[in-house]
Amino acid sequence: MSRLVGSMTDSEQVRQLLQRFARAADARDVEGLKALFHPDATVDSLRGKQAFLDWLKGMEGPRIYPTSMHLIGEPLVHFDGDTADLDSYAVVYQIGDRDAGQQDLTMGIRYLDQAVRDGQGWCIRARKVNILWTR
Amino acid sequence: MSRLVGSMTDSEQVRQLLQRFARAADARDVEGLKALFHPDATVDSLRGKQAFLDWLKGMEGPRIYPTSMHLIGEPLVHFDGDTADLDSYAVVYQIGDRDAGQQDLTMGIRYLDQAVRDGQGWCIRARKVNILWTR
Amino acid sequence: MSRLVGSMTDSEQVRQLLQRFARAADARDVEGLKALFHPDATVDSLRGKQAFLDWLKGMEGPRIYPTSMHLIGEPLVHFDGDTADLDSYAVVYQIGDRDAGQQDLTMGIRYLDQAVRDGQGWCIRARKVNILWTR
Repeated sequence: MSRLVGSMTDSEQVRQLLQRFARAADARDVEGLKALFHPDATVDSLRGKQAFLDWLKGMEGPRIYPTSMHLIGEPLVHFDGDTADLDSYAVVYQIGDRDAGQQDLTMGIRYLDQAVRDGQGWCIRARKVNILWTR
Repeated sequence: MSRLVGSMTDSEQVRQLLQRFARAADARDVEGLKALFHPDATVDSLRGKQAFLDWLKGMEGPRIYPTSMHLIGEPLVHFDGDTADLDSYAVVYQIGDRDAGQQDLTMGIRYLDQAVRDGQGWCIRARKVNILWTR
Repeated sequence: MSRLVGSMTDSEQVRQLLQRFARAADARDVEGLKALFHPDATVDSLRGKQAFLDWLKGMEGPRIYPTSMHLIGEPLVHFDGDTADLDSYAVVYQIGDRDAGQQDLTMGIRYLDQAVRDGQGWCIRARKVNILWTR
């Protein structure tokens, strides 16, 4: 999947980046995720700050929940040339296997992303994942 | 309600189309819904692929839930001339009548729409409704 | 926090206004909220129609819920010169203190805003808060 998005404004492009992330994460589409992050990207989440490629290994393992849905809201965006700071609220639904007695997990998340523009468009250079609440 | 939206970009227009759908569906506004779909549109949902006008009859009957809310997220959009493919996550809240003992129903939905542009702006030509989860 | 947002379209600017509201409300950032509303703004909510500055006093008091998250969807927008009508669905999560036995409160809200543009950009001139459902 190319990151090029034709005639969209920069604001539209960075919002599409987040929506692509949501669908690739839910599909466990590792190649799709790779296309959205800078090769040297970092992800700072529950496990602390990791290289993106290390974080990605966690997406290649077996799924804990059979279905997930990342509903990512509109980011607050601040552009500075070829860099953009994105601040996005999301609700992530991890849907359990009820037949197996597995509970659902719902998470309120705030993604703080630094996106950068290169020759192929915008990609995520650094992500901080703040989990605001879980239920 | 006209579909014309003045100086908005195409991206803005197709996103508005989805938001108009949400409000018209929640209000059971049949005329409002008609304004958003192509007269020959199809809707492929739980009942299989239907003509839009047949699907619409289901919206004219009595409500099962007294209140609904279609929270539709930002679509992933791909434009090809006067056609656009939209891929949207939504959480649909069907709020039961508690006094009557009715439970709520919450659905995670992925709408896959083909939108087309005609002289009046963008409208939905074909919709596929994928219900990802229900609770 | 300035309201100036550089090269964004009017649609992008009013959407950013809503997202700024969400984060300022969740942080109880009173100065941040003041920057988003017109000094003569009104808020029509559960307590009836109030001056914004009176409504704001309620945000300065002690929090009932330790954590909140305003997930505000894309507004339906109608521009008329330097005025814009915004119609936004939101789900507001008020997260209780479980250790203290406090329950969560989730609200489905429809914000009807009149935004106006002045020399500093767009701000909210009048807000009507319709609570569609609570759980």
